Amino acid sequence: MVHADASNFTADITKEEAYQQVLYQAEGLFYEQRNWVCNLSNTASLLWHCYKSLPAPSNAVNWAGFYTLDPSSSQKQQLILGPFQGKVACQTILFGRGVCGTAAATKQTQLVPDVEKFPGHIACDGDTKSEIVVPIIVDDKVVAIIDIDCTQEHGFDEVDKKYLQQLADFIAKSCDWP
Amino acid sequence: MVHADASNFTADITKEEAYQQVLYQAEGLFYEQRNWVCNLSNTASLLWHCYKSLPAPSNAVNWAGFYTLDPSSSQKQQLILGPFQGKVACQTILFGRGVCGTAAATKQTQLVPDVEKFPGHIACDGDTKSEIVVPIIVDDKVVAIIDIDCTQEHGFDEVDKKYLQQLADFIAKSCDWP
Repeated sequence: MVHADASNFTADITKEEAYQQVLYQAEGLFYEQRNWVCNLSNTASLLWHCYKSLPAPSNAVNWAGFYTLDPSSSQKQQLILGPFQGKVACQTILFGRGVCGTAAATKQTQLVPDVEKFPGHIACDGDTKSEIVVPIIVDDKVVAIIDIDCTQEHGFDEVDKKYLQQLADFIAKSCDWP
Repeated sequence: MVHADASNFTADITKEEAYQQVLYQAEGLFYEQRNWVCNLSNTASLLWHCYKSLPAPSNAVNWAGFYTLDPSSSQKQQLILGPFQGKVACQTILFGRGVCGTAAATKQTQLVPDVEKFPGHIACDGDTKSEIVVPIIVDDKVVAIIDIDCTQEHGFDEVDKKYLQQLADFIAKSCDWP
């Protein structure tokens, strides 16, 4: 199969079916490949094209990608920008700061229907109205997070949470982390 | 400045002006940040939005990103997928294979008006008709390549080559490479 075809989602599929395709394609793309940069780059592309194939609010996703544990941070733990699709983003985020930092610090998925109401929200893009962040955990340590932003409020629900957590678990075990 | 604004290019600017903005924004985004994954991720976004702001053929760019030297390759040198924007892509490319592998092996920019006529072209995406690949060289060694694909033939010219080579030089000296 031509690799780019993995990004093509059929019209009129449900969000559940689209996420199942993301998981299925990720499994194929990660086969015999554990390089985390390579795998996160392709997964960001899968997620982006998945959302763009769905009806609103999913097609209003304006950022899909990853932050990883910053290897250069000595004292305070922080996240550093990883592969993504969308507009330019903040380079680093301290654990505990904003939605991403809270997911990293608490090891808990953050499903945020209105980012303006989230204490300490970091506005990398003023257009972002809602967000979901899922930690990727290896041996009880956060190695990365999945971050998805949407220009509509209430852009994400329990279906997104369920499948992004499955994806996070798959990514966690399928890559070699620095 | 909100980070995402770096991806916003004014309408009606020339390709030269758009590339100058990419270089200017990259300089700002790389300030006090030498992490190569972070910097290549933001640069792929800058390039993507640069092309989308321009008239044809530039706005027909369908892939913009990077491959880097694969640290896991022991015998044969190969490239591995890095941060990008666009559809899912090939994970690894041997030095010497296709347009990317030729740029890596020869350390020379490959400006290819018609990929079908390039010996050994690797079709990651059948929609791609033309391509430009610029090596990123540190101490006479290829550490990465910039790869841009276009769905129109003759998508790139000497202006693209000039500015992408400037960008490659800037990236080479501004990141710590593995």
